[in-house]
Amino acid sequence: MATRPIEHGPLALSVTGGRVPTTPVTVYERRDGRLVGRADRLAVEEPLEIRVQDPGSAPSTLSITMRTPGHDFELVAGFLLSEGVISRRGDIASIAYCLDEDLDEEQRYNVVTAELTVPSGRASIERHVITSSACGVCGSTSIESVRLCDHPAIGEGPVVPIEVLLGYPDLLRSGQRAFESTGGLHGIGLMTPDGEVLALREDVGRHNAVDKVVGWALMAGLVPLSEVALVVSGRISFEIVQKAVRAGIPIVAAVSAATSLAARLAEDQGMTLVGFIRGDRCIVYSGRERLAVSDPAVLP
Amino acid sequence: MATRPIEHGPLALSVTGGRVPTTPVTVYERRDGRLVGRADRLAVEEPLEIRVQDPGSAPSTLSITMRTPGHDFELVAGFLLSEGVISRRGDIASIAYCLDEDLDEEQRYNVVTAELTVPSGRASIERHVITSSACGVCGSTSIESVRLCDHPAIGEGPVVPIEVLLGYPDLLRSGQRAFESTGGLHGIGLMTPDGEVLALREDVGRHNAVDKVVGWALMAGLVPLSEVALVVSGRISFEIVQKAVRAGIPIVAAVSAATSLAARLAEDQGMTLVGFIRGDRCIVYSGRERLAVSDPAVLP
Repeated sequence: MATRPIEHGPLALSVTGGRVPTTPVTVYERRDGRLVGRADRLAVEEPLEIRVQDPGSAPSTLSITMRTPGHDFELVAGFLLSEGVISRRGDIASIAYCLDEDLDEEQRYNVVTAELTVPSGRASIERHVITSSACGVCGSTSIESVRLCDHPAIGEGPVVPIEVLLGYPDLLRSGQRAFESTGGLHGIGLMTPDGEVLALREDVGRHNAVDKVVGWALMAGLVPLSEVALVVSGRISFEIVQKAVRAGIPIVAAVSAATSLAARLAEDQGMTLVGFIRGDRCIVYSGRERLAVSDPAVLP
Repeated sequence: MATRPIEHGPLALSVTGGRVPTTPVTVYERRDGRLVGRADRLAVEEPLEIRVQDPGSAPSTLSITMRTPGHDFELVAGFLLSEGVISRRGDIASIAYCLDEDLDEEQRYNVVTAELTVPSGRASIERHVITSSACGVCGSTSIESVRLCDHPAIGEGPVVPIEVLLGYPDLLRSGQRAFESTGGLHGIGLMTPDGEVLALREDVGRHNAVDKVVGWALMAGLVPLSEVALVVSGRISFEIVQKAVRAGIPIVAAVSAATSLAARLAEDQGMTLVGFIRGDRCIVYSGRERLAVSDPAVLP
């Protein structure tokens, strides 16, 4: 039952490095009217228990998320920032696997402890599972808690040529190492106005992939991410925009639709939100001023 | 600050009935080299606060989920079953909106209270956010808690002609009312071996859509769902299979990939799991014995 720190420091990487793990399986494929047995590969999904250790306290479990192993320390750092448990890189003293030698092999790298230098702002998480609030507060307090309380304002940000923005999904796809072999992974990228990929992470959970790129940036001292775009392989939910706001990201660009609340939060925060980027087409939900277009826009 | 029960009973429906709400927005569409303003519609996403009232106790908040409004009572019933808070229809005395007249209009239908007839098995939820476990238990207890503790065994189940199974995604798509207009909704169906759609629900969150169909079945006295297939518009994660197991569903069929842990849980539980259903092709991960094929299978 040892607590063995594996890696520390601002650029700590998880044991699996840059590779995205897949697992071999035998399946039957229906093809040309028959079922044929063959080998296949699946995206690995495992639970990750996130523990937080406040100064002078024992570690305690904050959350369990189902994730694709790899970049686990970045995932934890990004999750803590996204959820308001911490607000800057310096709030983290160390991040380490908490190895229990009695665990079976496969669970050994599924528990991560983040040691903090300051008391965690944990209330922001726990209010998601409050067990003592009276019915009198019905909604008002609890519902508002899913909004944002404390975050950096989104700055003016860069202006991105629309041709660069339209190319983001291709950059994402070409960078997604494991997608082709499993078809089961979401990809998230941090990209510059010049079309450079700063970071790209994959995960079975889209939110985890966002936490991984944001956590990478936090560990590298790049938060707030005031000059980059967050590129999303799928749909844009409220929580994706919420995480981007917490990280100070001015532009979110995706290949699919945004939800109503995602679009509202983006507009409220002055964020540029773009969806349905396909070929030379896209839908701009808000923040058109950060897009450089050669032809003038036609007003509705 | 009134608690006003809206609807009770085994087939209680939410206020929005069968319609899936969308919200109008003005967007700019990039098309033929220019940005053109036009009207669009987005899938509505709103927070739902789920409260549980144990016998003799005040209601307390269990969870907040981001969902598409509509079928909220079914969502709550399905969530309670999926998470192990209840195990049968009779554990629910009533489900009602908890209206606070001080709330703004848009939040009024975002808080639902389920009154229970028996004490809730709430521990199964709270262990996801435990704050007192010692580091000594590192993983073993917490990680195993995401597995299943108490659920009906999956029965022999039906045998489905593969042609019927291959037709499930088309049934799902043709039943999805709002998808075409927003592009932002997941669809989940309960379908029979004859290709009949028992229930179909849409949501911005795939897990919510599963909870909605399972909740519908629970309220209608149809759980365990031992003779139907759960049809999924996207990918199959561990949690989707977990919810199906809790509802006693023997077949899960999807248009995209399964994760490693989803496939393992399905196999462990004797469930039939099929992915990548596209045209006349599909991938069978486990439980081939429930598929009737005319040609014999070729062994790997």
